Amino acid sequence: MNIAVDAMGGDHAPGVTVQGALWAQSEWGVNITLVGDQDLLGEQLRKWEKTGNGIQIHHCSQMVAMDESPLKVLRQKRDASIVVAFDLVKRGKAEAVVSAGNSGATIGAAVLILGKIKGVERPALAGIFPGAKGKVVLIDVGANVETTPRQLFEFGIMGDVFTQSFLNIDNPKVGILNIGEEGDKGNEQVRIAHDLFKQGPLNFVGNVEGRDIFSGDVQVIVSDGFVGNVAVKLSEGMAETMGIMFEREMSHSLISRLGFWLGKRAFENFKRKLDYAEYGGALLLGVKGIGIICHGNSSPKAIKNAIRRAADFVNNHVQDRLEQGLAKFQSKGLQGD
Amino acid sequence: MNIAVDAMGGDHAPGVTVQGALWAQSEWGVNITLVGDQDLLGEQLRKWEKTGNGIQIHHCSQMVAMDESPLKVLRQKRDASIVVAFDLVKRGKAEAVVSAGNSGATIGAAVLILGKIKGVERPALAGIFPGAKGKVVLIDVGANVETTPRQLFEFGIMGDVFTQSFLNIDNPKVGILNIGEEGDKGNEQVRIAHDLFKQGPLNFVGNVEGRDIFSGDVQVIVSDGFVGNVAVKLSEGMAETMGIMFEREMSHSLISRLGFWLGKRAFENFKRKLDYAEYGGALLLGVKGIGIICHGNSSPKAIKNAIRRAADFVNNHVQDRLEQGLAKFQSKGLQGD
Repeated sequence: MNIAVDAMGGDHAPGVTVQGALWAQSEWGVNITLVGDQDLLGEQLRKWEKTGNGIQIHHCSQMVAMDESPLKVLRQKRDASIVVAFDLVKRGKAEAVVSAGNSGATIGAAVLILGKIKGVERPALAGIFPGAKGKVVLIDVGANVETTPRQLFEFGIMGDVFTQSFLNIDNPKVGILNIGEEGDKGNEQVRIAHDLFKQGPLNFVGNVEGRDIFSGDVQVIVSDGFVGNVAVKLSEGMAETMGIMFEREMSHSLISRLGFWLGKRAFENFKRKLDYAEYGGALLLGVKGIGIICHGNSSPKAIKNAIRRAADFVNNHVQDRLEQGLAKFQSKGLQGD
Repeated sequence: MNIAVDAMGGDHAPGVTVQGALWAQSEWGVNITLVGDQDLLGEQLRKWEKTGNGIQIHHCSQMVAMDESPLKVLRQKRDASIVVAFDLVKRGKAEAVVSAGNSGATIGAAVLILGKIKGVERPALAGIFPGAKGKVVLIDVGANVETTPRQLFEFGIMGDVFTQSFLNIDNPKVGILNIGEEGDKGNEQVRIAHDLFKQGPLNFVGNVEGRDIFSGDVQVIVSDGFVGNVAVKLSEGMAETMGIMFEREMSHSLISRLGFWLGKRAFENFKRKLDYAEYGGALLLGVKGIGIICHGNSSPKAIKNAIRRAADFVNNHVQDRLEQGLAKFQSKGLQGD
């Protein structure tokens, strides 16, 4: 197995991407191809005194800035690291791509080079949240700013298949993210989607609310990419703020500091659960291959964990199972008709 | 001062509303009028063995169910508790309304009976979040499912005036909730709003992301009511889930349990910061009077704190300052033109 890392993508590339890749390689022995400028990447590798066992560089001459127009990139930068990375997957030289770069360009490159799975109108990003009663898949967390009801329904099908194949949950409960449980709540888009889901084959439980993203009562929650993206980033910001507040409180008195010291390991386990860097990036569903999209400001740990997640997807044949699952829905005339 | 409580509104009314009102009365000595069925309310008061010092009942014959159509309520139920409560404010018999009832009907009743402040197109709900660097006002958290760019701009002005008058922050930083910082990110609505804000008089810092709701770097964040409502409920759900996970971790070993016991007070302070019941409800901005809208499933503590917050608004003349502030903007031709 070989994972292609877009080494030039992200706010702190290539330092952070190379560090994360080296970490993943030494921890799990996964083979990694760093895609990017060979001089810059060679320099980074020398900095860490790595000879590159299990790590190779695939040179390319261009990179994509975080604020560049995705369309322009795809038209004019055919040798950009993110384009070349997906090309490696297309040509069978790598099994998955991890990128912390410009997410619009990454999604665009995935669609352009790998192509969409038959019947899929819009690929979408699946994010995984740690609910109290188990994991929750939120789809879409940022690929599609605006969506039609039909696309939301498609997200539900992809989320269902993904949850069954990756989280091994049979017949997961699927809900629409809305501002109330009644079917007539929300904007037109979610109201029409509600009717589509009701007629569909999924284990649809109706509308759910923001709090359900962390309850775990429902395993798949669909939303447009705007709301989903706000939800992901809000959760991260809240976890961080809670961490700060918690440490502040715990340092107020000698006795609470003692308590903090005694409970330290438990606190660390707790913090790890809330730390999104542990979860790596979001998975792009609906294209013919595996792409993991990380935050622009990912830490080396986040890159490391995204690589691990990519390897998990490959090992679990998530892509094949996703394509088969979608084909099954499609053969029933529920998709792409 | 007298606060009118819609005693029949909410999932657990009138038990919870009466209990919250009694608690607020005994703790802060605020006068409260319970609006609702006098038999039911009298029974509740007797249950708590309160003779009603500082608490009076204003009888009405109708109530509103949580899933009733707001429009139908306003047309057909003129003696519903929420309608009568706002009527008390209109007639100068009360200074503010607190309701955990059907929020659509509550907002509708406020607009119908109190009327909108001159120049305001759409009243909006302001929610207050505990950011790491200070409080953050998010507006709108649920009054308007869909908004125009112009309305988002109006929310910014109301949020600015509210933050100055209630949180005493001069010239607060105002941002638009979006999925990226660049001006061209997001849907059409936020892109056009971005231009309006840029030309406007506020201390506009551009787009902000979900994480900023808990950072405190920006004091006023505008969004449509759909996204804002998801954000509020997500935060509540996350705080709850974190509490559960934390207790689980802390009970794993004897030593962490000891740590938990020693740090108990600090944990409690911490939990209180995250407990939304501490913050009471959201304030409806843009109508000629004070209305606090609480969750349908509010606890007595949430009702108590919402009453306290209503009293704070009255004591701080927030309403007058809001109307004056909006008039100032309006006289500059920035509002309602």
